[in-house]
Amino acid sequence: MSDTQPTRAFAPATVGNIICGFDIFGLALGEPGDEVEARLRSEPGVVISAVHGDGGRLPTEAARNVAGVATIAVLAESDMQDVGIEIEVWKGLPISGGMGGSAASAVAAVVAADALLQTELSSEALLRCASEGERGPKGDTHPDNIAPALHGGIVMVRPDEPGVVIPLPVPAGLSVALVHPDLELETNEMRGILPRELPLTQAIRQWADCSALVVGLYEADWDLIRRSLVDRVAEPHRSRFIPGFEAVKTAGLEAGALGVGLSGSGPSMFALCRTATEARTVASAMAEAFAEAGIEGADTHVSEVANTGAHMVETPA
Amino acid sequence: MSDTQPTRAFAPATVGNIICGFDIFGLALGEPGDEVEARLRSEPGVVISAVHGDGGRLPTEAARNVAGVATIAVLAESDMQDVGIEIEVWKGLPISGGMGGSAASAVAAVVAADALLQTELSSEALLRCASEGERGPKGDTHPDNIAPALHGGIVMVRPDEPGVVIPLPVPAGLSVALVHPDLELETNEMRGILPRELPLTQAIRQWADCSALVVGLYEADWDLIRRSLVDRVAEPHRSRFIPGFEAVKTAGLEAGALGVGLSGSGPSMFALCRTATEARTVASAMAEAFAEAGIEGADTHVSEVANTGAHMVETPA
Repeated sequence: MSDTQPTRAFAPATVGNIICGFDIFGLALGEPGDEVEARLRSEPGVVISAVHGDGGRLPTEAARNVAGVATIAVLAESDMQDVGIEIEVWKGLPISGGMGGSAASAVAAVVAADALLQTELSSEALLRCASEGERGPKGDTHPDNIAPALHGGIVMVRPDEPGVVIPLPVPAGLSVALVHPDLELETNEMRGILPRELPLTQAIRQWADCSALVVGLYEADWDLIRRSLVDRVAEPHRSRFIPGFEAVKTAGLEAGALGVGLSGSGPSMFALCRTATEARTVASAMAEAFAEAGIEGADTHVSEVANTGAHMVETPA
Repeated sequence: MSDTQPTRAFAPATVGNIICGFDIFGLALGEPGDEVEARLRSEPGVVISAVHGDGGRLPTEAARNVAGVATIAVLAESDMQDVGIEIEVWKGLPISGGMGGSAASAVAAVVAADALLQTELSSEALLRCASEGERGPKGDTHPDNIAPALHGGIVMVRPDEPGVVIPLPVPAGLSVALVHPDLELETNEMRGILPRELPLTQAIRQWADCSALVVGLYEADWDLIRRSLVDRVAEPHRSRFIPGFEAVKTAGLEAGALGVGLSGSGPSMFALCRTATEARTVASAMAEAFAEAGIEGADTHVSEVANTGAHMVETPA
């Protein structure tokens, strides 16, 4: 394998939860995303040669970096611990932004490493390896970002079968306006502020809306999708950490969004829209509302829901 | 309208919840069911001339009988309070059996009354009138039996839009084994024993499974349907009121059922099966397990999920 060429993979930004489906639904944008290049090295083990675009904030020790941990998992999965891999990471996504940045790095790493090693791991194995990088403090994994980053489209994951990704239909045109304010919220802290129990009356409403969203996607029923996009779980507790949340939500809805909510655990907010054109209008309205709330210069991203997830990209010459 | 002929409607047994979808999913059998005949009378208001098949236990005062209340609601909905209707009820379903008996009576009554009066009420109005008969002690309605009894098939209802019935696909062959032990559980009491809160970790699993069931129905994916049929809400609290519950569930699953659980709030238990033939085997196994637990002679009913809900039937000459 000494003349093996470097491999480079891209994995997109993702939106976890999709408002009503806390911990179970996720979708992939076309861009932006993270890229990881993998190269063989003579010494066994995984090293990170560089991380770009993180302002120097991410650890470059492989065992403490999600892309590194995911790459180590690929070697373990393939029983190739005697092989050495060097990875280089280009962050296109913000850290702790709620845009699935750590999932994108982990997924790009496993896809690049799998291609480098020609291991042709199953998608279940790729998911498992990428999830290693994202374990929470209790060892739990929440593949609602990993799964769409890997597979693209809109997917469902279930806690009882974390390796199984269930694809959902994507109605033609369905687009995302993603707005990232210059704030950071730590995912694990954001999990901690949620109550451990949910009133049964609210839980019933939540599974009614999750189920209705699935029907809406199958039937391409925009109105049902709109009516199902209600978050009774995270939004009531997390939205107060985001200055202007209500104003941004209102602005997005008034600009025509089907629904507006937290992207993952925030602080990014996103809107689902019927077309990319609508999503551009919505994104501007949301960014403007952030500015009026004192958060200037929020980044906006508009993309159709992308049926292509992570994929190989050319290695620059 | 003095020469108007009597009208008679049938409404089928229904299974509420469908294991994973507490308060939101329901399905209709082809039979058994209740029938209601409506006739004009000269005096305004609603009277019940007779109720058959209830062992004399149901009230015959219209305002205290679900079929009577539903008929009164039809007159109010149509602004025809000066018209008089006499109804006669044939109970084919047990009282407090978990087979949607009161929903069937209410639905048969509104369908018969609507036909008698030629009011051609919308399905939303029929649902609303039938639901009047089924209000709980807090004035809440749970149309997860009313909706399938009226529309047939498998349907979803959402607490936030109680008048909206969302039909779900029925995979070819999908059948029900319904087993009614000679026990009675009062629906409202069975609601009272449920905790008011659900751990978030369990709630997440429940909306994952509700959503997965919808996907399974759309994709006719028997294995996904099977894996989604888990009840973390009612079964842990209600099953202990049903002697032999665990043995009956195990017997049904071992006989090939996709899932076994409480029908509504019980005591009837039901199984979802891939074919009517399978459902017959499963029903026998479940009844036998009830007998071994000391509950002899449980009634069994086997039916494909019926896409026809309530419908007019011939008035016997």
